[in-house]
Amino acid sequence: MREHRRSTILMQSPPTVLSFAAIGGKKEAEGPMGEYFDKINEDPYFSEDTFEKGESQLQKQAVDHALRKGGLEPGQIDVLFGGDLLNQCTGTTYGIKSYEIPFLGIYGACSTMAEGLLLASLFVDRQIARKAMAVTSSHFCTAERQYRMPLNYGGQRTPTSQWTATASGALAVSASSQPPYVRGCTVGKIVDMGVTDANNMGAAMAPAAFSTISAFFEDTGLTPGDFDHIVTGDLGAVGSSVLCSLFEREGVSIADRHLDCGKMIYDPDTQDVHAGGSGCGCAGSLLCGYFLPMLQKGTIKNILFAATGALLSPTVSQQGQAIPSISHLVWISNERG
Amino acid sequence: MREHRRSTILMQSPPTVLSFAAIGGKKEAEGPMGEYFDKINEDPYFSEDTFEKGESQLQKQAVDHALRKGGLEPGQIDVLFGGDLLNQCTGTTYGIKSYEIPFLGIYGACSTMAEGLLLASLFVDRQIARKAMAVTSSHFCTAERQYRMPLNYGGQRTPTSQWTATASGALAVSASSQPPYVRGCTVGKIVDMGVTDANNMGAAMAPAAFSTISAFFEDTGLTPGDFDHIVTGDLGAVGSSVLCSLFEREGVSIADRHLDCGKMIYDPDTQDVHAGGSGCGCAGSLLCGYFLPMLQKGTIKNILFAATGALLSPTVSQQGQAIPSISHLVWISNERG
Repeated sequence: MREHRRSTILMQSPPTVLSFAAIGGKKEAEGPMGEYFDKINEDPYFSEDTFEKGESQLQKQAVDHALRKGGLEPGQIDVLFGGDLLNQCTGTTYGIKSYEIPFLGIYGACSTMAEGLLLASLFVDRQIARKAMAVTSSHFCTAERQYRMPLNYGGQRTPTSQWTATASGALAVSASSQPPYVRGCTVGKIVDMGVTDANNMGAAMAPAAFSTISAFFEDTGLTPGDFDHIVTGDLGAVGSSVLCSLFEREGVSIADRHLDCGKMIYDPDTQDVHAGGSGCGCAGSLLCGYFLPMLQKGTIKNILFAATGALLSPTVSQQGQAIPSISHLVWISNERG
Repeated sequence: MREHRRSTILMQSPPTVLSFAAIGGKKEAEGPMGEYFDKINEDPYFSEDTFEKGESQLQKQAVDHALRKGGLEPGQIDVLFGGDLLNQCTGTTYGIKSYEIPFLGIYGACSTMAEGLLLASLFVDRQIARKAMAVTSSHFCTAERQYRMPLNYGGQRTPTSQWTATASGALAVSASSQPPYVRGCTVGKIVDMGVTDANNMGAAMAPAAFSTISAFFEDTGLTPGDFDHIVTGDLGAVGSSVLCSLFEREGVSIADRHLDCGKMIYDPDTQDVHAGGSGCGCAGSLLCGYFLPMLQKGTIKNILFAATGALLSPTVSQQGQAIPSISHLVWISNERG
């Protein structure tokens, strides 16, 4: 570990991701990851009268499934960390309020699941909480009309643009002797390389992922070869290529084990999503639906989960500012170490 | 401590709030708390070309002053917790990005300073970080045009409305043998009593403060008499009265020691603020400028700092939803215990 700063933190008694659930929408069900969701909602309104209320239902379903799969009651959860892309994170607050769980709101854009998982794990590891949860979501219809254009406008999408996933992931962390374990984490710094194109967020976010993953390797002495997969959140096709190039420039090859949730969630040949998927729920749902089950079974032994967030708002974009980004990383393992 | 849930957490080795700074605007300087700010900015643009960029400068100044007053370099800070009221918390991200400090974004609306302080204190207490910071801000001009009306519209304000403070507070937490110490904290639950009037946020937030302060007393066995002041964030005149009534209904009197930053920051007779001040920066700046210096000197020995946040957004208000609220509490003391 570097002496001057502790951005990578290793767990003292690696806690367990006790239960996890992934909820998706219709388009997510039709993609290559469709079978890994716990529940699919064909209705983008989730039986509500607005898309925003629907997104709250999506998060509520994810928390509900994660609780039930773990045999947990809301009263057993000491703290829940959650956030989403909606202004003032109302997807989360309106979604989880009925559970009456002590709540700490977080904002990390599409890095939210990594931020929530690292905080929940640290709270359990350092005995601040006995059981802690994390949740996040995104919804194509709420994000599109908040960040870009009214849905009915039907504007042409650029080749570098990504499709916001309608999906949610929730998980619960606790001390246990069962895998998967959270072994460590790296808190990211904000990286701003001057990218101003809000339709090319993969390129804006790739340097943040590079910064955080590099810091983890430097701090721990571990190398890409120690991991089955280095998983990023939603860099998409463009950002993934930038990330691999940044590592290659340093003489490090990650391309053979790099996976990006944004590239995995849709079929580029049949689903017309351009550079891939995005949104807090993209990485959140694939972590909970695809990667954590494999780590639990031992099909894979170790991953780095480095979700990235573009910290822009429509207001600052309209004012001509560049897009600062951040990436938080969590090391999850089948082995306790 | 209650066995079933750990919403109140006592520090194992109470950490010190090592340094703190409060920055304000012109109206805040003219109020009764004017002399307690470290720096006043007469220009609402903070020498930038938009109010939003100005708010980022405000936070940057607060972090800068807190670092300098503590003799600290950014490289010594292991993690910074920050957030604000702007969509996607851009006041914070654009304000602090140049410091290159590992960053965890939080969203608690006007409870943000309490959330940041409790997280920074827990990180230091449980040896996750050696030095941790928290920062927040609000700005009248950015909040007014984002949440309510264009500034030039000049709509009539209701008697229950509050004035968003243009202010910021920042602090650094570290292990030390000097006061003030953070002794414990209570993580709040979301409380929704069905209030839908976005111009009466004090009333919406008072039940959240009551819930969290009551939980602290129940969990610890301490009573209002153990504290010089029970400080709320920005309930204003209406919400403060509701809070005291809620305690009276339980046979507990807090009125003789309750102070509300929203009632303190402006002069109701001369400053035309109706029910008082509000905004993350209101409680944040008075904690850093007024209360922490007194706790450091020993003028007062113990306070509960229970900031409250209204977790609404303009979108959900327009969709007719009620305003869920939250309050996080921090016990700060001149004595280590």
